[in-house]
Amino acid sequence: MKALVYNGPGQRSWREVPDPVIQDPEDAIVRVDAVTICGTDLHILKGDVPTVDHGRILGHEAVGTITDVGASVRGVTPGDRVLVSCISSCGRCEYCRQGSYGQCLGGGGWILGHLIDGTQAEQIRIPFADRSLYKLPANVSTEDALLLADILPTAYEVGTLNGQVSPGDTVVIVGAGPIGLSAITTSKLFSPANVIVVDAAPARQKAALEHGADLAFGPEDDVVALVLGLTGGLGADVAIEAVGVPATFELCTRVVRPGGHVANVGVHGASVTLHLEDLWIKNVTITTGLVDTSSTPRLLSMLAAGRLAMPGLITHRFGLDEMQDAYDVFSRAAETGALKVALFGDTEH
Amino acid sequence: MKALVYNGPGQRSWREVPDPVIQDPEDAIVRVDAVTICGTDLHILKGDVPTVDHGRILGHEAVGTITDVGASVRGVTPGDRVLVSCISSCGRCEYCRQGSYGQCLGGGGWILGHLIDGTQAEQIRIPFADRSLYKLPANVSTEDALLLADILPTAYEVGTLNGQVSPGDTVVIVGAGPIGLSAITTSKLFSPANVIVVDAAPARQKAALEHGADLAFGPEDDVVALVLGLTGGLGADVAIEAVGVPATFELCTRVVRPGGHVANVGVHGASVTLHLEDLWIKNVTITTGLVDTSSTPRLLSMLAAGRLAMPGLITHRFGLDEMQDAYDVFSRAAETGALKVALFGDTEH
Repeated sequence: MKALVYNGPGQRSWREVPDPVIQDPEDAIVRVDAVTICGTDLHILKGDVPTVDHGRILGHEAVGTITDVGASVRGVTPGDRVLVSCISSCGRCEYCRQGSYGQCLGGGGWILGHLIDGTQAEQIRIPFADRSLYKLPANVSTEDALLLADILPTAYEVGTLNGQVSPGDTVVIVGAGPIGLSAITTSKLFSPANVIVVDAAPARQKAALEHGADLAFGPEDDVVALVLGLTGGLGADVAIEAVGVPATFELCTRVVRPGGHVANVGVHGASVTLHLEDLWIKNVTITTGLVDTSSTPRLLSMLAAGRLAMPGLITHRFGLDEMQDAYDVFSRAAETGALKVALFGDTEH
Repeated sequence: MKALVYNGPGQRSWREVPDPVIQDPEDAIVRVDAVTICGTDLHILKGDVPTVDHGRILGHEAVGTITDVGASVRGVTPGDRVLVSCISSCGRCEYCRQGSYGQCLGGGGWILGHLIDGTQAEQIRIPFADRSLYKLPANVSTEDALLLADILPTAYEVGTLNGQVSPGDTVVIVGAGPIGLSAITTSKLFSPANVIVVDAAPARQKAALEHGADLAFGPEDDVVALVLGLTGGLGADVAIEAVGVPATFELCTRVVRPGGHVANVGVHGASVTLHLEDLWIKNVTITTGLVDTSSTPRLLSMLAAGRLAMPGLITHRFGLDEMQDAYDVFSRAAETGALKVALFGDTEH
């Protein structure tokens, strides 16, 4: 089969590799019908994630069809249309038993396109298939399902739920990429009073307003002063960091009110300065997190029931064998306006 | 009357000042029967708290007797023996109505010995008396009550409750001063599996073990490796920072397990480095806070019922007019072994 292979920093190839096979009774083999590229894949290609070996097939988000299952698999069967979640779960370790699947100690967690071969291929082997795949209701579109592999549960669990967004809150979301835009959607489930988005790109500010933000600011604005002005001098109840650089994290800690929450979602490559000389007295809660995808079944049922207004994030569509073109478009997002790119196998054309 | 007056960095005097008088219908005047000195008072004397004006009477912890009340005061009456809480509450602002008294916007919060004259005096004026004083049951000793003015509720609310200490947890407390030792007491209310205390001073390590810690380590120990060894390689469920310098905060963020809590209690004068490049993926929650004293009524009733084993923290006792000697002993704690010093008025001799 063909797959997107990481060959070391800056090096990727779309090339022939052996077909995956069942290695464990809990495995399933999935034919990829649709797949996307994540910002994390670009981090890997820069060499920022040293735990990814050379020769690894990238990708951790897909929708596909089961073609084979191991002897112990009961939840899915060949022919089933499934969501491939970015998080796998052994189901047996201390963290999995608490629902903290992202921190799985038994060989799961974020493994796809990281510690084992991933989804940017014609086929994939999925370990712990009963706890890592979700059968898709017929009325859920492939494009919507694709966003439930990582983006939506991450924005929901790590942003909205960790930040404890509540009715009447003022929520500031820093970064209007796919995660930030999805955080607007998932935060509005809790009826906040105001959702304010901060992004450097005018096109993304516009997208934020289209996705339901009440206000959008840029770096030329004095965001802290504006938010204080909008909140009687108090600041935001919740600040969601959806970029992953020190300046945006520090903005979140400056814009949050006493007693408020800072929910970090961004993937950081460097340490930040935490101004405890100001914050020690402010009763602030700061959370970090990798998604557990424990919310995925619920989000999927909301989607099937028409209770989740999915953000329109897929801006560019490709055939699966146009993988290199899709990477080119996605890695030049500032220029191409790409939010999420989606690639489809022949079955979906 | 006599009072301890801050005259600018490094300058304190025990001198004659005017007696306090009722200024508002919600005020009470309290005769000081017992008072203590807090590490925060030493910070003020170093000039670290620029919001304290020269000429300010210091102190925010006391036990006393009501001598006069304003026309609107209903909860206390002259002759009542009362606890003077470090936190006052207007009772009317958004934060007070949520129980977040420490963040009071209506003129309360931490005001005593900070924004208005404090408790290190023969008498004090207490604003919002009905919400800032607590009538003491006869069977609660003055020394025990004194620790409920700040130390115990701070260790409980900002350390134990913010850290979400739970049955079976491994709790690491960094710093074995009065707050750290009290955090042992309040954390053990939740039946943790292990309480591990870290302090540079051998005398304080010994005190920690006497106060119920299971293990005590010093800076010569590889604390992170030892805690990982004790927890199957995972780390502490909760790390409580009770010092207030960058190294101890950073130790807390290194010793905590994925999904764990870092509860900062220390008063910080400088920023710290937050290693988000490691922590972004670890589902860690970091909290900061000034005490609200919302737990004070409950702690007081537990104390009266014999359900709270008070830590023995008062190491040195003085007469009220020996205030300067008490400051000398407390500010040389490393040498004198002082944890808390208590000063008593003539009525308590």
